[in-house]
Amino acid sequence: MTNIKDLAKMAGVSVSTVSRVLNNYPFVKEEKRMAVLKAIKDSNYQKNINAVHLSKGKTQMIGVVLPFSDYPYFALLLKGISKQAYKYNYKLLLFQTDYMESREIEALKMLKQKQIDALIICSRTCNWSTIEEHLLFGPIVLCENVNKKLVSTTFVNHYKIFYDALEYLYHKGHQRIGYCIGRKSGASSVKRNSAYRDFINQYNLPDNHDYIFDDCLEIDDGEKVVQYIKKMDTPPTALLVTNDQAAAGILTACQKAKISIPDELAIIGFNNEPISKIMNITTIEIPLEKIGNNLFLQALSGEISNQEIAVNLIERGTV
Amino acid sequence: MTNIKDLAKMAGVSVSTVSRVLNNYPFVKEEKRMAVLKAIKDSNYQKNINAVHLSKGKTQMIGVVLPFSDYPYFALLLKGISKQAYKYNYKLLLFQTDYMESREIEALKMLKQKQIDALIICSRTCNWSTIEEHLLFGPIVLCENVNKKLVSTTFVNHYKIFYDALEYLYHKGHQRIGYCIGRKSGASSVKRNSAYRDFINQYNLPDNHDYIFDDCLEIDDGEKVVQYIKKMDTPPTALLVTNDQAAAGILTACQKAKISIPDELAIIGFNNEPISKIMNITTIEIPLEKIGNNLFLQALSGEISNQEIAVNLIERGTV
Repeated sequence: MTNIKDLAKMAGVSVSTVSRVLNNYPFVKEEKRMAVLKAIKDSNYQKNINAVHLSKGKTQMIGVVLPFSDYPYFALLLKGISKQAYKYNYKLLLFQTDYMESREIEALKMLKQKQIDALIICSRTCNWSTIEEHLLFGPIVLCENVNKKLVSTTFVNHYKIFYDALEYLYHKGHQRIGYCIGRKSGASSVKRNSAYRDFINQYNLPDNHDYIFDDCLEIDDGEKVVQYIKKMDTPPTALLVTNDQAAAGILTACQKAKISIPDELAIIGFNNEPISKIMNITTIEIPLEKIGNNLFLQALSGEISNQEIAVNLIERGTV
Repeated sequence: MTNIKDLAKMAGVSVSTVSRVLNNYPFVKEEKRMAVLKAIKDSNYQKNINAVHLSKGKTQMIGVVLPFSDYPYFALLLKGISKQAYKYNYKLLLFQTDYMESREIEALKMLKQKQIDALIICSRTCNWSTIEEHLLFGPIVLCENVNKKLVSTTFVNHYKIFYDALEYLYHKGHQRIGYCIGRKSGASSVKRNSAYRDFINQYNLPDNHDYIFDDCLEIDDGEKVVQYIKKMDTPPTALLVTNDQAAAGILTACQKAKISIPDELAIIGFNNEPISKIMNITTIEIPLEKIGNNLFLQALSGEISNQEIAVNLIERGTV
């Protein structure tokens, strides 16, 4: 079987040059790179690539578990992860789980089998003990605060952010406050709902289930929220909207429906996406891209660290 | 070594149930699934997962080659691909190549080694012969018209779309027409540039390099285009902007700078993203998500087909 020394001989280059080419490092002269690639081709070397991975214990592949890649929250996280993966020339293996535990377990299994070098879990269904069983097999990085010393995490405090935003609206004079969310089932959604419940209990506010809207993912989803609100006898006077795309859609639909913003309806978006700046939407800046960057770097380094990322309320024209 | 029959015995279920669990098919009773998972755990079965892949010749993994995943054009293609991958429970392996041939070759090599079931190439640097060498090893799907019968493709005619849009602006009375693009180096950028050159030669229009702006990727990039235009003695009177995010940014910056749209500057965006609807931007609808869907389904089926996707000019308020 051809080995790396044979390749170096065939290509007339050093072993370290072959290694650089195999690992796609930059700074190899094109001429030498071509010579190595020719040697690889001539010698049918591809059969050994797995052996190279084994000897290094590296696949240059990092797994990313996320329920759906097209929900803005996860899309922005993934963007941050991808930017770093690109920079370090790592491939990303995407597991879109729809919160099915079997798909999460499949990802963990691939870590166990060394088919990926590390695993980033953006959101999950499986319980901590399932994660714990796999910690020995490679770095696992979580995007949540699990209060464990065994695993790297980068997270925001979804409960506190939601509660603080609700109190902010309350102190601005609002009592009928609702919120719009992507899906009810995610881990952050559960925390947000619990903040909302605690808030209305604390301030003794009406508990109106009609004030909670789900499936608010994109600009186009704003229209249906506004149609619904228009039909209510006592509509909410303020909405927390968990992504700026949907907030922009609600704002536009209100403008069409002659609902005055913020006088008749106050809106707080999330993420400080560029569209919120253009449309002058008050928003809570969760630096998801930065969190994504961090998750990747934690997965890459393998050293355990835990980081809470701060958020900012950016006051603009919709409250 | 434990095999699938042993697992079935240990779990007290049928072989086909074990197979269903291993392949993550739905419709397995949770109780049976747990029994199989326990048997897998108890028997240390993970060593055989690769053997399962081998026996089926399937990894449930499809590779996606794209230069950068965060450029809107590719992000939307990837969104379409991801939606189908999610639906069919396939994992996606992302190769972000920055148009480096070595990274494309790495992807092709993984197809050759059966580490992925199929490969979708959204844009590439390597030449056709490199692709051709790998056609035997599994389905390769391209997002361009290569006029070959050997490979599946889904594509739009970037040259014609750009030329037609330029002529449309010309017939609206514009002679000083520029364009904004993400990066100059991509395959579609080259075709667009060649359409632009042919157009200005055909109509004998001024060949002003200052009318071509690159790095126009996001909303925030609009500002610098407008700053630049403001300083010109003879600014362009119309711009083709190859994504709606940047078009929205230019529109907003013009509103701030008191440049009247469309009287002083006409704008045509691309992709018909929701933001173009909200901001009433004339745009060319390239159904990138649909193209992404199609690319995945072609990769999955493995049958060769070639499809040109039609585009629409959506006339709104910016021309």
